[in-house]
Amino acid sequence: MKLVFSKSELSKGVNIVSKAIPTRTSMPILECIMIDSTEGQIKFTANDMELGIETIVEGDILEKGKIAIDAKIFSDIVRKLPDNDITIQTDDNYNALITCENSKFNISGKSGDDFSFLPVIEKQKSIRLSQFALRELVNQTIFCTAPNDNNKMMAGELFEVIDSELKVVALDGHRIAIRKKKLEGRADDVKVVVPGKTLNEISKILSTDADDMMNIYFSNNHILFEFDQTIVVSRLIEGEYFKISQMLSSDYETRITANKKEMLGSIDRATLLIKESDKKADYS
Amino acid sequence: MKLVFSKSELSKGVNIVSKAIPTRTSMPILECIMIDSTEGQIKFTANDMELGIETIVEGDILEKGKIAIDAKIFSDIVRKLPDNDITIQTDDNYNALITCENSKFNISGKSGDDFSFLPVIEKQKSIRLSQFALRELVNQTIFCTAPNDNNKMMAGELFEVIDSELKVVALDGHRIAIRKKKLEGRADDVKVVVPGKTLNEISKILSTDADDMMNIYFSNNHILFEFDQTIVVSRLIEGEYFKISQMLSSDYETRITANKKEMLGSIDRATLLIKESDKKADYS
Repeated sequence: MKLVFSKSELSKGVNIVSKAIPTRTSMPILECIMIDSTEGQIKFTANDMELGIETIVEGDILEKGKIAIDAKIFSDIVRKLPDNDITIQTDDNYNALITCENSKFNISGKSGDDFSFLPVIEKQKSIRLSQFALRELVNQTIFCTAPNDNNKMMAGELFEVIDSELKVVALDGHRIAIRKKKLEGRADDVKVVVPGKTLNEISKILSTDADDMMNIYFSNNHILFEFDQTIVVSRLIEGEYFKISQMLSSDYETRITANKKEMLGSIDRATLLIKESDKKADYS
Repeated sequence: MKLVFSKSELSKGVNIVSKAIPTRTSMPILECIMIDSTEGQIKFTANDMELGIETIVEGDILEKGKIAIDAKIFSDIVRKLPDNDITIQTDDNYNALITCENSKFNISGKSGDDFSFLPVIEKQKSIRLSQFALRELVNQTIFCTAPNDNNKMMAGELFEVIDSELKVVALDGHRIAIRKKKLEGRADDVKVVVPGKTLNEISKILSTDADDMMNIYFSNNHILFEFDQTIVVSRLIEGEYFKISQMLSSDYETRITANKKEMLGSIDRATLLIKESDKKADYS
């Protein structure tokens, strides 16, 4: 295999798929990025079995082939290389030679025969919204998720579509965040629970441009995000989400309107005098 | 006591003396900033017994007095207050009321009777240089110091003045840094070892302007830095510094000239493939 990339395109591709590299795993192959140019385009894939990302990277294919390379070493190397054309060349023993200007790196890769590619998802239902909108929905709710061994649901967010309105809900037992968004065009009714980790990672690689659209597909066990040249597939959390409507009271006695900036400042200053020991007590 | 400060002046003062607040101590009074306005100017002092800093802060004295306030809480409060006039008022029981716009903080202070003020230093010898020059001297040598229980000298830097030339030396057993600087005007001959911690902290509060001068005074056991409205006093490390001249060979066989940026880039990239375990071996 012999591929030539611009530094910026290669960085972008590595950065996107790295979001699916697990920090700790007992399976070394999961720490690898699969580079596959056998089908006429260069595809980067990473998959930690829960979350899988696949992206097409711009570059010239001088010789087709594929190889799995350790993601950490590879991304470190790419980051440190000068801003110029980067060539990746592999031999039959899966040794990769990465060259850029006067720099040469020899690293050993893997055949990737045991690499687990993204599952094929039956696109039963779908919705369409802007990448910016999804990023906002996630950012405004994700802080209410909490990994909880007793209740897996708290680590995820409810995605519910009824009558072309998407409702995103997160709760951690202390607080709840609900965010709604009217969808344009036809949207299927959906009710699934998406892992918070998936949403966290995807919000980092979504475009910030309100005009860039994306499709989200749902199957029984998976959610698939499709945007730009990238596909993200994640398992869903199985089970019934909390009954939100029963939790919320509708007759509040007191209602205040405050300036957001002043309120934030006041909370910030008052928090200074909370002792660390008191803070801990809050969560017990 | 009742004092009024602008936020920026107060921040600056707190920031300067905080450099002498120890991170851990068994003596609570050392964690305090002493605010003293009894002599017609507002003086902030902090002293961890090794390093002491005193600075004059601009502000209005509506009522004279003094108080010792916990440095961490006080600096947190000052940082979070709005950018406006800040008033500090104390009562006879050493309770301090800090007000700014709509914010009020009540914190309890101490009389400071057990506070240890800066020692009076006999200004036997002195040198004069720009604050920028000292900052540069320190920044280019400080990485060669290393706290070492077996040899206290390694935690300090040699300051040696001979014939109006200041030589600063640091070494940690693996490497040595020597930096020289011609002094203008009259300079006394000096040979002392200054703790690295002192130099580290002082380099953070020195002006970056090459025109701002400072005086450095030496006594048998102390070094005193005097600049702007601030005095920094530090103990010296006692003992004889290493004999540098015997360590350096003068007949090198190979000499290379390299582009600094390219060399840095090469080292940076080559370092990527050093394993963590190898790195540790380097220091053993």
